[in-house]
Amino acid sequence: MKAEIIAVGSELLTPDHIDTNSLFLTRGLEASGFEVHLKTIVGDSAPDMEAVFRAALGRSQVIISSGGLGPTEDDITRTVVARVLGRPIRTDPDIVAAIRERFASRGYAMPRINERQAEVIEGAEILDNPRGTAPGLWLEAGDSVLALLPGPPREIEPMFESRVLPRLEALGGGRRVAERSFHVVGLTESDVDARVAPVYTRYQPKVSTTILSAPGHISLRTWQWLAPGQGAAELEDLAGQIHGILGDAVFTTTREPLEQVVGGLLRESGRTIAVAESCTAGLLGWRLTRMPGSSAYFRGGVLCYANEAKVDLCGVPGAVLETHGAVSAETAEALAAGVRARFASTIGVSVTGIAGPDGGSEEKPVGLVYVGLADGTRTRHARRILPGDRELVRERAAFMALAALRRFLLDDPP
Amino acid sequence: MKAEIIAVGSELLTPDHIDTNSLFLTRGLEASGFEVHLKTIVGDSAPDMEAVFRAALGRSQVIISSGGLGPTEDDITRTVVARVLGRPIRTDPDIVAAIRERFASRGYAMPRINERQAEVIEGAEILDNPRGTAPGLWLEAGDSVLALLPGPPREIEPMFESRVLPRLEALGGGRRVAERSFHVVGLTESDVDARVAPVYTRYQPKVSTTILSAPGHISLRTWQWLAPGQGAAELEDLAGQIHGILGDAVFTTTREPLEQVVGGLLRESGRTIAVAESCTAGLLGWRLTRMPGSSAYFRGGVLCYANEAKVDLCGVPGAVLETHGAVSAETAEALAAGVRARFASTIGVSVTGIAGPDGGSEEKPVGLVYVGLADGTRTRHARRILPGDRELVRERAAFMALAALRRFLLDDPP
Repeated sequence: MKAEIIAVGSELLTPDHIDTNSLFLTRGLEASGFEVHLKTIVGDSAPDMEAVFRAALGRSQVIISSGGLGPTEDDITRTVVARVLGRPIRTDPDIVAAIRERFASRGYAMPRINERQAEVIEGAEILDNPRGTAPGLWLEAGDSVLALLPGPPREIEPMFESRVLPRLEALGGGRRVAERSFHVVGLTESDVDARVAPVYTRYQPKVSTTILSAPGHISLRTWQWLAPGQGAAELEDLAGQIHGILGDAVFTTTREPLEQVVGGLLRESGRTIAVAESCTAGLLGWRLTRMPGSSAYFRGGVLCYANEAKVDLCGVPGAVLETHGAVSAETAEALAAGVRARFASTIGVSVTGIAGPDGGSEEKPVGLVYVGLADGTRTRHARRILPGDRELVRERAAFMALAALRRFLLDDPP
Repeated sequence: MKAEIIAVGSELLTPDHIDTNSLFLTRGLEASGFEVHLKTIVGDSAPDMEAVFRAALGRSQVIISSGGLGPTEDDITRTVVARVLGRPIRTDPDIVAAIRERFASRGYAMPRINERQAEVIEGAEILDNPRGTAPGLWLEAGDSVLALLPGPPREIEPMFESRVLPRLEALGGGRRVAERSFHVVGLTESDVDARVAPVYTRYQPKVSTTILSAPGHISLRTWQWLAPGQGAAELEDLAGQIHGILGDAVFTTTREPLEQVVGGLLRESGRTIAVAESCTAGLLGWRLTRMPGSSAYFRGGVLCYANEAKVDLCGVPGAVLETHGAVSAETAEALAAGVRARFASTIGVSVTGIAGPDGGSEEKPVGLVYVGLADGTRTRHARRILPGDRELVRERAAFMALAALRRFLLDDPP
């Protein structure tokens, strides 16, 4: 049961705009049993639009378009689709009246061009638009259905939810997608693939699997399309094996960000945290406080960019800085212990490194990052050389700190 | 001269991901004389990909694809395009050697599957990938050229800029889009439109104009298509008028982020800064240090999430906190003065607010944010109620602090 989405509008082909309607459309389509296998963004050009709609009719059971229903010359979705389907268009007097009334209720006369928005393709059902003048159209044509919807998010969202989804659910007849996802830390994309490919390939094509690399973590998604009433036995079986293979390198199976997982571990165990950030300069603190309620465990921190702050505010002995340098295991551990004491938190965590592009040396290259951890009993550090440019090294350093903190918490369960 | 973009990857068809590479690809294509008339997002499915590439070859002079060049089973762009073009594939031993070396330089052995990334379609030129293992491919086929590029933004961007753009410029033969853009702070989207619409509408359709709202700022873009040798007189004329109308609400005409503009002002005037962040908890410090060389002006800061840190580390008198509360003009100013003294910087800047979703009251609603500024002579604050959810309020609060800091610096030129 394949669906495709066609976003219409020349503005969506400029360097500043992007189609985002397709995200919630996809969620709704999947939930009602349709797999989005293509998205096309096309300008207000009749030949291009005709080609796209014609191709779609041959290959997709559900076709959802957004945009091109406005009143102006370049809003041509209705006329193009009528031509592709070989059906006449008529102007619906009830819709004209409704649009006229909408204008009147705001004290305006309806401009003549808005009559275009009352054009209806033969055989179409009309989808009300409580938030705008253009109604949507629902059409059946051969083995496909088409929903022509308006472009503005505030108009298309309620129309899709209230008018289109119920029709899709009826069409889908109980089909749906079941999925399991795994977010993994501490392994590369190829590592993950090498470990699990022998397993997931055995479940193809029934269960699909994708592996995706993000800065700092790898995500793996498996999903299975289910007929009405069908259980997801294969998916569950595969997911169990994947989880067994990857073990606690998996930090979430529910798409929780790593900071939320760490926040949960802190909260559950009643522990608090403070951060000392050099090269990340706030990124770690910002991430640890993304979740509502983070004040329960986040005490605060020091952005110890300058060395004076490492000494004065985080209590790093001047001799440690002099002997080992700001980017060293010794300084990282001293920062963690010092910020912990300063904020009277259960745990202190620190990040110090060379984000680049300058400041690297043969011994301490750009990308070298140390994370320090201290809880009064244990003092630890992690060391890595992170790839990427300045921005990416900093992002990965914050992720590395969260991953090390998770490990620190897991190793000492409450 | 038509171009189309094909983004490959099943993850781009999920409800969580969207293709964003096409934005900078579009900018580059336009600058070299090609108009993007279609974008397609297709999953890792051979029949779908074949249909899309086949259709593209018939209708576009330039076809750029992103994604599907990775080492895993579902990375099939190379094999699909080879089949569509009817050309054989061979494994290039030099590329295998380069990938192996890349792994070796990090202390890893190359996994066997990475050999797939060394596959080259007959007749293709190889586009180096300094940031990853997968090289891109440049192909000529009939009246079209194809560039097969990797998916990760940090890999595709430099490859497109250095390897693809020069080839496109040569193909484009001097046609191009000329553009001027303005990033504006302190005005709403409707404010900006009301001021400049009377001017830009007079230049339509020769010069196009769009106004776009982003969290914290508004961007305005004007552009004009030019034949080889044609000057952009109309565009320059309009741009001059727009700049005159918007004045110093324009913080950049070169798309520099606001933190870079502020960093430039600090550096030029030899001033240094320290931050005290409550609700943003590091976002401001992170942004101020995004640019290389920011250690010249950024001294550090305090994440004063807990009230104790506001008192102990930033010297806010307990009485001020008790009388006015943590989210108040008085606390914001005391934080700015305190963190300035603590870090011995020229300027102190603070952010304190209610990011939500909890903690709001009738008097102090969610979204209320104060920014404080102090330089030893002047003490100031700004107050706003920012719209949006927790994440957006925090983003806008950091932007508001940067905007207030810019104003503070402009008002006291060196």
